[in-house]
Amino acid sequence: MAVTVVGSVALDSVETPFGKRERVLGGAATHFSLAARFFTGVHVVGVVGQDFGDDELAVFSSRGIGTDDLRRVEGGRSFHWSGRYEEDMAVAHTLATELNVFADFDPQLSEVARRAETLFLANIQPDLQQRVRRQSEARLAGLDSMNYWIESARGPLVEAIGLVDVVSLNDAEMRMLTGEPNLARAARSVIDLGPRVTLVKQGPYGAAMYSRDEFFSIPAYPLETFVDPTGAGDSFAGGFFGYLDSLGESEPGRNELRAAAVYGSVLGSFVVEDFGTERVQQLTREEIDARFAEFRQMVIF
Amino acid sequence: MAVTVVGSVALDSVETPFGKRERVLGGAATHFSLAARFFTGVHVVGVVGQDFGDDELAVFSSRGIGTDDLRRVEGGRSFHWSGRYEEDMAVAHTLATELNVFADFDPQLSEVARRAETLFLANIQPDLQQRVRRQSEARLAGLDSMNYWIESARGPLVEAIGLVDVVSLNDAEMRMLTGEPNLARAARSVIDLGPRVTLVKQGPYGAAMYSRDEFFSIPAYPLETFVDPTGAGDSFAGGFFGYLDSLGESEPGRNELRAAAVYGSVLGSFVVEDFGTERVQQLTREEIDARFAEFRQMVIF
Repeated sequence: MAVTVVGSVALDSVETPFGKRERVLGGAATHFSLAARFFTGVHVVGVVGQDFGDDELAVFSSRGIGTDDLRRVEGGRSFHWSGRYEEDMAVAHTLATELNVFADFDPQLSEVARRAETLFLANIQPDLQQRVRRQSEARLAGLDSMNYWIESARGPLVEAIGLVDVVSLNDAEMRMLTGEPNLARAARSVIDLGPRVTLVKQGPYGAAMYSRDEFFSIPAYPLETFVDPTGAGDSFAGGFFGYLDSLGESEPGRNELRAAAVYGSVLGSFVVEDFGTERVQQLTREEIDARFAEFRQMVIF
Repeated sequence: MAVTVVGSVALDSVETPFGKRERVLGGAATHFSLAARFFTGVHVVGVVGQDFGDDELAVFSSRGIGTDDLRRVEGGRSFHWSGRYEEDMAVAHTLATELNVFADFDPQLSEVARRAETLFLANIQPDLQQRVRRQSEARLAGLDSMNYWIESARGPLVEAIGLVDVVSLNDAEMRMLTGEPNLARAARSVIDLGPRVTLVKQGPYGAAMYSRDEFFSIPAYPLETFVDPTGAGDSFAGGFFGYLDSLGESEPGRNELRAAAVYGSVLGSFVVEDFGTERVQQLTREEIDARFAEFRQMVIF
């Protein structure tokens, strides 16, 4: 079993109330890969510049993440996002988004990437999400998006949503996409576009999972150490799809989807404990399973 | 067993995207009473004006809620709150707050109200909360407050918090009170003031319950019919304290507190389905227990 993830592999510059980091490893596909690899094989599809060093590459390869589809452009510069979070870290101010080599990203998947059973289309241009979906033979596919694409490419995004099984958005994006302020109705409207499942990310409040007849509430872990929110959503997706892929079922049922959502929350709760990928690079499967058990204790009554 | 609740009994004028109501029965103590009475005996302590009719009074008395401590002032006018909710109903605009007879509210509890095993101090002036707490013989007491008192009467509020077992605030108020943006740390700071338990209301995201060594996440019910948020927090408190009181235990344990928080969420989820008290006036114990079971289905994995 394996997951292919397509999206940004970046160098991020981040400032939070707890400090700052300059040009550290980041990007949606990076966070996804480092979470999913705890559960299954991962192929990362992306593009980086010459400023992307061997040390950065080794973060993937030393963990068994396939980098054959991670193209390095000689003379190019990597995607660079620079942002600052406010005091309560609910609001991020983007200071700069330099697409660089990512501007012309239009991958042709290698055979191994194409054949992976699971596909995750991280937050990229919806036309590109469609082209990648059509190349892939995955039997389970998901996508993430953002307000920028909802405003500037709604048609292509709706079409991309029709090609996947799982859509992951935050609650504001879900409302913006559907024009429906009531979240339960908004989620149902997204289901009407084709997917089986919608994951609604709610930041410090946890997440919710809707399917046609099912609702699952996923708590937020009560973190006292919360350093950098960057990557929480993509780590959630990595845990979710990585775990589902490891089960080897083409139509995961209610219990499998719920456990996957909790594994997603577990990974999302770890990544924010330190800057960038620092915490997840040190993470162990034992820590993941211990926190999974803690999540159960947080909700039973 | 019985609960005494002290707070506003009001006539509310509310406008939401779904319609409006003029001078309908409302107020914190009203919502609390109508929720708690499903579980135990309730005495309501408050003051109303001559504009408070026999029909309004019958809403309490016909449900067995004790109104001996609900004083009607001849020639006076009832507390009147007027507000408008925005499209997504996350933001309320207060259009008018007329205290009227409530301005001089300083109750002397009757013997039956004083002797109730449980006391809830709804959102009123913290000095008054202290005076009432000191009159009461309750072995379990809780209070609610709001940003206005945190800003204008922090000292008396902190002192009142030291006199109760359970504090109920929303997440913004919890942060404002403690100056701590991290919610888990904020909740711990409140516990340090004396209470055993803090309930953190998170509106459409549910709630969380913290004690010294325990955390419980309470989901939000995925309501598709959400008409008027007024009274959700007080109905939550009514379900919570009403259920706890019905157990007759002076030191409720983990499981009792958790079940109480879910009953609170159940009541909070019903009250918002219609304007004011309209939904809860029609509610049955069977509906409450059915939704309690649904809450369990929403979180198990």
